[in-house]
Amino acid sequence: MKQLSELMGYRESIRVVDATIRDGGLVNSFRFSDDLVRALYQANIRAGVDYMEMGYKASRAIFDENKFGKWKFSKDEDIVEVLGLTGSEKPIKLAVMADVGRCDYEQDILPRSESPLDLIRVATYIQQMPEAIHMIEDAKNKGYEVSCNIMAISAAQEGDVRIALEMLGKSPVDVVYIVDSYGALIPEQVARIADLYLEMGEKYGKKIGIHAHNNQQLAFANTIEAIGDGVDYLDATYAGMGRGAGNCSMENLISFLKNPKYDLYTVIDFVEKYMKPLRESGTVWGYDLQYLLTGVMNQHPRSAIAFTESGRTDYTEFYREIED
Amino acid sequence: MKQLSELMGYRESIRVVDATIRDGGLVNSFRFSDDLVRALYQANIRAGVDYMEMGYKASRAIFDENKFGKWKFSKDEDIVEVLGLTGSEKPIKLAVMADVGRCDYEQDILPRSESPLDLIRVATYIQQMPEAIHMIEDAKNKGYEVSCNIMAISAAQEGDVRIALEMLGKSPVDVVYIVDSYGALIPEQVARIADLYLEMGEKYGKKIGIHAHNNQQLAFANTIEAIGDGVDYLDATYAGMGRGAGNCSMENLISFLKNPKYDLYTVIDFVEKYMKPLRESGTVWGYDLQYLLTGVMNQHPRSAIAFTESGRTDYTEFYREIED
Repeated sequence: MKQLSELMGYRESIRVVDATIRDGGLVNSFRFSDDLVRALYQANIRAGVDYMEMGYKASRAIFDENKFGKWKFSKDEDIVEVLGLTGSEKPIKLAVMADVGRCDYEQDILPRSESPLDLIRVATYIQQMPEAIHMIEDAKNKGYEVSCNIMAISAAQEGDVRIALEMLGKSPVDVVYIVDSYGALIPEQVARIADLYLEMGEKYGKKIGIHAHNNQQLAFANTIEAIGDGVDYLDATYAGMGRGAGNCSMENLISFLKNPKYDLYTVIDFVEKYMKPLRESGTVWGYDLQYLLTGVMNQHPRSAIAFTESGRTDYTEFYREIED
Repeated sequence: MKQLSELMGYRESIRVVDATIRDGGLVNSFRFSDDLVRALYQANIRAGVDYMEMGYKASRAIFDENKFGKWKFSKDEDIVEVLGLTGSEKPIKLAVMADVGRCDYEQDILPRSESPLDLIRVATYIQQMPEAIHMIEDAKNKGYEVSCNIMAISAAQEGDVRIALEMLGKSPVDVVYIVDSYGALIPEQVARIADLYLEMGEKYGKKIGIHAHNNQQLAFANTIEAIGDGVDYLDATYAGMGRGAGNCSMENLISFLKNPKYDLYTVIDFVEKYMKPLRESGTVWGYDLQYLLTGVMNQHPRSAIAFTESGRTDYTEFYREIED
């Protein structure tokens, strides 16, 4: 939070990335209506959001296309059709996420000149760094901006994180993300990690981003901590929609950022018209006890997600289970 | 957050104050079942909570007893009866809140030796300080621990806050609270305010407390910021129940505090057995867009509460209204 008070003004280098369809897709199997996705695109443009993440580029050899909505695969032609893109001019940059080991990136990611996409977000566990680097190089060679999310760092050793950061520093990646996959971090830990990432970023000319989860109701707090520390790329989702406890909410973030290009009214309008009905129709995400518990215990939320999906409400029994 | 990393251990001077019935009572007109209040008392004892706030000591001349549950008035005999107190031994301290101008404190607050209460929490707007001081002296003379909540300081002038703090420093009050009534503060502002309060506290030997609201999903974040800064008295409510967007949740706070005397399991158990059903029965509180908006705009939540109570969902129209 070292520079927050300087942000009564604003930092031109800040970029807001809307991850609603990609991270939110994890709770509805990526089954968003075309109408919602198109309206989200329009809302992001009006709200001043800098990037919109369309979904995953998942391997169709590994995942059955019949079991997911189209944003699990985010085919270029679907993006063009649903967003109604014509020509090459877009007022906002488009991104997809590509998971190490679960993406046929060499064939599914086309050269940027032939694609509506601008940013490839490579997501990796720390032990997969060599393949992540290969994917980064592939995307960079195809002309894209490239970011890398090292996932689940709250459970990684700091020594390993330092090595991974050095590898990324020497790679052609543009942005490296601090990712709190488990929602386990508190602001002071974010500050410490941000220092580590920003040191690498300064050495190698990389930007740093943050992707927070709301298990401890700290997704927004951790994001503004990171902003103050100098982190520029900020992930958020409308109504905080995302896996488990969800993410930093777009309405929180846009209400906080001082750059006049960001428009809170548009964000509120989209949440009112699309996210509230989505939640009322039975799609479940957001802070709850089971996610608090896995966050505090620094565990993957999968047990909490299973608890939620099975309709269980015996939180104390769940707590006993995850302490085993 | 200056000392948080030192809190891998813990600070003996920290005190947790359960404000569920008092602040939560603002959303159900203080109509809690005796069973819930008794179970909460037992849960607080097992969870290691230090103080339990029973409700308000509101004036029965000003407020109609038929229109509120008993914890609007928190008569000593009701406390004794509902909690099943026998003799003078209690494993936990009991508190009430007394609002300046809305409490017949001279008659309704008995000498401590005749009462089950231990702590009188005087709540005041900054322009009411002289009467607050009078109430503090009255309670102190009757033998109580006394705290003072200066409400709505996010909308007060810092110069006035400094004067009020000096007045409190010279008074016999024990604890002075940082109160973010509007949920308008971010952690950096809390740090700045905490410095101001702690400076007074050191000069005059007063403890400092914090009472946060969750309008911006920052109640817990602001509370841990304050803990790191040296604030010792921490208000929380089970499931965050409280006016509007609610408070710092007890489950968040207890999961964070490292003192082994605090027991998270008990907190989860109480939320599961009592707070979840309370919410499912239609009692409404917690973060939502209308509270975010009043928080960000640094306004009293009353317009957002009215919006909620009328069942409105036109958030954009509400935003237009409060910007007028």
